This record gives sequence, C-alpha cells and structure tokens, in this order.
Amino acid sequence: MPLDGNTRIIAHIGDPTATFKAPMIYNPYFEANGINASVVPMGVRAADFAAALPVIFRFTNVDGALITMPHKVSVVDMLDEVSPAVRIAGACNAVKRDANGKLIGDMFDGEGFVRGVKRKGQRLDGARALIVGAGGVGSAIAASLAAAGAARLALYDLDVAAMDGLAARLVRHYPALRVETGDNDPRGFDIVVNATPLGMNAGDPSPLDVSLLEPETFVGEVVMKAETTAFLAAAKARGCRTQIGVDMLFEQIPAYLEFFGFATTTPETLRAHARISY
Amino acid sequence: MPLDGNTRIIAHIGDPTATFKAPMIYNPYFEANGINASVVPMGVRAADFAAALPVIFRFTNVDGALITMPHKVSVVDMLDEVSPAVRIAGACNAVKRDANGKLIGDMFDGEGFVRGVKRKGQRLDGARALIVGAGGVGSAIAASLAAAGAARLALYDLDVAAMDGLAARLVRHYPALRVETGDNDPRGFDIVVNATPLGMNAGDPSPLDVSLLEPETFVGEVVMKAETTAFLAAAKARGCRTQIGVDMLFEQIPAYLEFFGFATTTPETLRAHARISY
Repeated sequence: MPLDGNTRIIAHIGDPTATFKAPMIYNPYFEANGINASVVPMGVRAADFAAALPVIFRFTNVDGALITMPHKVSVVDMLDEVSPAVRIAGACNAVKRDANGKLIGDMFDGEGFVRGVKRKGQRLDGARALIVGAGGVGSAIAASLAAAGAARLALYDLDVAAMDGLAARLVRHYPALRVETGDNDPRGFDIVVNATPLGMNAGDPSPLDVSLLEPETFVGEVVMKAETTAFLAAAKARGCRTQIGVDMLFEQIPAYLEFFGFATTTPETLRAHARISY
Repeated sequence: MPLDGNTRIIAHIGDPTATFKAPMIYNPYFEANGINASVVPMGVRAADFAAALPVIFRFTNVDGALITMPHKVSVVDMLDEVSPAVRIAGACNAVKRDANGKLIGDMFDGEGFVRGVKRKGQRLDGARALIVGAGGVGSAIAASLAAAGAARLALYDLDVAAMDGLAARLVRHYPALRVETGDNDPRGFDIVVNATPLGMNAGDPSPLDVSLLEPETFVGEVVMKAETTAFLAAAKARGCRTQIGVDMLFEQIPAYLEFFGFATTTPETLRAHARISY
C-alpha cells in the first residue's frame, strides 16, 4: 500500500537511521495485508530529541513511535505513563498517544523473548532463570520473566552498578521474587539467557562456562545474527533447547502492533513478508 | 523502493492530509526509477507549524519539504532566502536546506504553467497576458510569466486589494513590465489564464466573456479536473489552443525535483507512473 494522505504513520525515531530494520519488517506486512500504515524513519539527533518528540506526536497522521538509539533512556522522563517493564528496564522503545493526548510508553524486547520461549514449550510460572547481561535488553527480559511468573532470577554483569540497580528495581516491583546477583554458573536454572553482545563478533569470549550447561536448561540469546553463535551451538551440543535473538525480534513485533492498536499477527507471517534476511 | 533507513525524505506538510496528491505522483516515480526517496505526509496544524518546521528540517533524513495549506503564506517569514516568485506570490510551497543549514523557499506553480505553455509552442518573450484571479496561484503565474519575459500583464480580480497588491509587487520586481488592472476583456492578449476556482463546480459562472476570446489566444486554466471545464471547452470551440490545470500540475513537478536536487524528468514519465488519475 503506497503512502497517501490517509496513511497512519508510526515514526521510527533514532540516529543514525541507516541500520533501521523495522520499516522492512512492518511495512511489507502492512502492504500485504491492506493496512494503510507505515513505519517512517525520522533521524533525530540526541540534542534535538526533547524538542522533536512532542512535535512529532502532534502530527495529525502519527499514532505512535518506535524509539531507538540514542533515545531509549532519555524518552522515559518525557512520558505521562510507562509500564512496569519500562520502569524496571529504565528504557522505552514504543510510545503512543492515548485518546486524552497522554504519551504512554512500553518496551517489548523482553515480551518478545518471553513469547518465543513460551511458544517453544518452556513453562515460565515458577521458573528459575539466569540472565547474563544487565543492560537494556537484559533488564527488559528480566522484567518480562518476572511478569510471566518466574520465581527466581539470577543476574550477572561485570558492571556491578547496573546489575545491582536492576536487582533493586526487580525486588521493588516484584517483592515475592527471589533475586540473586554476581554468579554466572548456569547449573540449576530452567532458563539461561545471554543478554550481552558477546557472540556478535567471531572470537568473542563466552558469556559463561558452557561446559556447565545442563541439558534440561532452555538457553536463549539476544545477539541479532542469522547464524547460530558459538555459545548457542555449544548449548545445542549439550542437548539444550535454544532460542536465537532473531526469534525474539520477530516475536516482539506482534506485541508492538497490539500496543499501537493494530490487529495482532504471528512471527511467521511477519517473517514471510519481511524484506530483510536473518 | 520500500522505505528504509537510507531513504531521503521530502516532508509533505499540511492539514488536512487526506487530499494530498504528491505522494501518489512522486513516490511511484521514485520507485520505478530506483531512487531511494519518499514524499511522506506529515499532518501539521496551523498552530503547530512554527514549532514543527525547524524540527522537521533537523531530521537527518529530511532534505526538503512540500508545503501546502494552511502554511503556504506563513512559511515565507520562516525562511532564510526566498525566490522572486515567492516574494511576488507571497506564498511558498517548497523548502530545502542548503549546505550551510539555511532554509531556502521557492514556488513552482507558475513555473509549471509556463513550462507547459512553452512546450505547447507558445512564445512568452514579449508576450501580453491576462490573468483572471490574483490569489496564490494567479500571483505565481504572473510572477513566472514576468520572469519568462512577458511584456504586459493585465490582472483582474474582484478582490481589488489582492489585485492591486500583486500589481505593485510585479512592478517592484520587474520595473520594465507593463501592468494593468481591473479589466477582464480577453481581446488583444497572447495568453489568457483562468486562475480562479471558477469551473470547479458545474454551473460556475465564466471568469470572463468567452465570446470575446480570439482564436490566436492561448487559454490556460488552473482548475484541477480530469475533464475539460466549460470555459476551456468554449475556448477550444473558438479555435484557441488550451492548457488544462492538470498539465500545470505535472509540468511543475520536474521543477520541484530539480529544486530538491534530484535529476529532472518529464511530465509524461511522471504521469505514466502516477497512482492518481486525471
């Protein structure tokens, strides 16, 4: 569906725009399904963001925005309402305007991870999970696992302040959750997540000692690569079920569509139309 | 060519957006020619325009803007440099950012009219023209005819202040031009233009007495309709060569493309790809 004056626009706000992937996933899906909507890249520098966000949300044809680097953290303080996932992650990548003009923020990286894991048959209620990496995406996954009913979360990050901060926010929002920090031994966990960028480049060290992975553990990752990383390959070799980062990506998009008020869809449908290959 | 993070965007700014035509003309042309650019509608209300324009021009992927109702007049005072056509018309519908960050405004409605008339074989150097209607588009046509070498322009509008204001601006910019006002008798002119909306609706009165049209006069119009209006049909019946408003529309788009730094093209190529019918 080509752009016209009735097209509803989702602003994709970040800088630089060159690496944006969302337009090539959302727009072919919209087009194939006769939905007159479009994700439009808007390159906004960090220094311009505070002025730009309110202006963009006053465009009569903009209903929502995907927020990416370098604005995911700074946007949080500009919103009227944010979800627990945003408060725990300290970051936000989706904003919509409600009927009263309020700006509402959410974050579905973790939701994508959780949806994928569930669809692969892993139970989350009462689950024990180790999350290596307490940055934005690790925090989002921790928040979503907690929301999905996990009983125990272990966090590990060389950045101790980030790790301890995430632990504190989790405990504040989920007082019954058992949260531990400082150990990346994967034994005794139902779910282990590499939420670090380790694996993006050949020769990266492993995020944890793979020889300790137990075959009944479900192992997930956030690195966005087509191929399986060495870490996930090792987990598979040990008999673990696994989820690649790209699965998390496609699993989260139905959540964004729902958030923006569109009908939901499946990751498979989105992949079938996407103009990027993973 | 689908939108991606490298797409160069021309913001199409106005309110309401529902009637926007430019995306359906420019974008199919860009796509058919492998040009990674897109005209993107941005609905901006009058009250928001002063804040929005500078923000939009700081988007890293925006090179220019098409400005339409209700901002064509108010934009003029927000620009660093404007063309004589803008100064004479008092309106602007195209803005670009130059290498130094300056905002440059131009207006090609009149240029489209002039290009079409020339391509139909009408000489403009030394020409005598009657322009009925001294609003935005009539002013733009007057400015472009003057720039193209017309020797004598007669203006007619029931809004005397608009007519006299245009006459004064024309004389200021083209001191050698002979400018007359207040008579819509078409006899003795090489070119006669209906630059009023008369003809848009069935039963509209004629902008002038068609029985006085001379067969050697070239008669043009700005009404954007697929069919020939009663006025143009009467001119044709009297043996006049004619130009419909839609010709002016497609003739001006190569001028906009050139202004924004794209390669030029022909009205015929644009029409062949356009997703609107006229």
